[in-house]
Amino acid sequence: MEWISNSNILIVGLGLIGGSYARALKRLGYRISAIETRKESIAYALRTGMIDAGSDQPDPELIGSAEAVIFGLYPEAFKAWIREHQDKLKPGSMITDVTGVKRCIVYDIQEMLRPDVEFIASHPMAGREVYGVENSDDRIFRDANFIVTPTEKNSAAAVEWCKSLGRILGFRKISILSPEEHDEMIGFLSQLTHCIAVSLMTCSDNHHLVDYTGDSFRDLTRIARINEDMWSELFLLNKDALLTHMDLFLQEFGELRDMLAAEDAEGLKEKMRLSTERRAWFDM
Amino acid sequence: MEWISNSNILIVGLGLIGGSYARALKRLGYRISAIETRKESIAYALRTGMIDAGSDQPDPELIGSAEAVIFGLYPEAFKAWIREHQDKLKPGSMITDVTGVKRCIVYDIQEMLRPDVEFIASHPMAGREVYGVENSDDRIFRDANFIVTPTEKNSAAAVEWCKSLGRILGFRKISILSPEEHDEMIGFLSQLTHCIAVSLMTCSDNHHLVDYTGDSFRDLTRIARINEDMWSELFLLNKDALLTHMDLFLQEFGELRDMLAAEDAEGLKEKMRLSTERRAWFDM
Repeated sequence: MEWISNSNILIVGLGLIGGSYARALKRLGYRISAIETRKESIAYALRTGMIDAGSDQPDPELIGSAEAVIFGLYPEAFKAWIREHQDKLKPGSMITDVTGVKRCIVYDIQEMLRPDVEFIASHPMAGREVYGVENSDDRIFRDANFIVTPTEKNSAAAVEWCKSLGRILGFRKISILSPEEHDEMIGFLSQLTHCIAVSLMTCSDNHHLVDYTGDSFRDLTRIARINEDMWSELFLLNKDALLTHMDLFLQEFGELRDMLAAEDAEGLKEKMRLSTERRAWFDM
Repeated sequence: MEWISNSNILIVGLGLIGGSYARALKRLGYRISAIETRKESIAYALRTGMIDAGSDQPDPELIGSAEAVIFGLYPEAFKAWIREHQDKLKPGSMITDVTGVKRCIVYDIQEMLRPDVEFIASHPMAGREVYGVENSDDRIFRDANFIVTPTEKNSAAAVEWCKSLGRILGFRKISILSPEEHDEMIGFLSQLTHCIAVSLMTCSDNHHLVDYTGDSFRDLTRIARINEDMWSELFLLNKDALLTHMDLFLQEFGELRDMLAAEDAEGLKEKMRLSTERRAWFDM
């Protein structure tokens, strides 16, 4: 049985992902506390036994007694929290996060953080189309990837600690990427796909089409139910990488469009053969 | 128990969909025969008891004894078959198809068809990413829509017959649309989504990304495994409707891109709110 040595874990930001962390870690026997400004979330988590203690304030005792702190905040809120409250952190404590973009977070936080506390960044690539602690569910980790994004400031021990965290949370696969590699990858696999789903959904007032919808349209637009505050922030913080991917996609889609307009059957087939060949890798 | 009165049904073109029809109808007790140029398909279907009789040739006896004929051919092949072999059809027989585009088929076939045979067009909106009779499976009809696309040349009896066929095949919902409405709808819900999936798959040699792929990318590209002969023909035969939808999508996606480039957070959020609101209709 794998273990992380911090028996006292604090989760700051108890939403869908923070709550799912709490559920998984509590079941493993850790003592879990949480700080979350939404009072109802703390009340819910205490009532259902997901956490042992909680507050809607940055309680110095809760913060000061945690050996590990997991941040489930949006990127800018995360930075602001560290700026204002890092003096309350326990010396020697370990910090990680769940943020979906990395370059804009990792270097800033490591730069401003006290030298006796270590921040090792990670991204649990899991989610649902609903949010809030009430919808948290650690089964979403089972088939998901957990990415650790260390910098040269991180100790080997912190990287190992963070990989262990991903494993005990139940993730299928743990990977190491640089913050730059992470943002490039996430721009393509996650952010571009969300842009496509949103555009497909907004490009027509297709209410009357619900009756005829098959699996393909439903699958492509599942992620079009989107938390606009979180995703607009994530898009803007990864603007350069996402724009590059959007432009590549526009070019490719435009080529397919022009082939259709020119009735270039051979060109269309060639694109489809390439697509089929590449997609096959994902079913192996 | 609903019924169609034709006890002797011929399927011309025994692929994934034709084969799935054969399985469903055979189980209901109909006598099923099939004509399919691929010898192995006929052999497989006979060996597994999916059909009672079959031939890789346009056998006059099989054709002449069928009270209903279901065509599982590509659009151009379907038209060619009718042109060459309609003299063999039984007087009074009923014909339908499974073709994914309608305007280009329905009027031409009805125009050239013998007056003592009726063609009522339909589209089973079901499929898989694999093909061939060996992969046929009528469970794909369970959650799917069956669209009947009559013209003013069709009798009320033929429309009812075709709706009954859809019901006994096990489709969830039977609808009536004009060929024009059908092609408009299918251009958006099915063809545009396939264009998007193909473009997403071809826009980057993303082999190394397989390891990090989450549900959203897999969902968006599932249909990127595509039968290039069939889909290029369907795209070209619905060129005007599909181009209109592709251009609308390009415009919408381009707007989102420009909002990101301009760091227009409010604009991005507005698109996401609209997308979320519209997508919610599909989960009701």
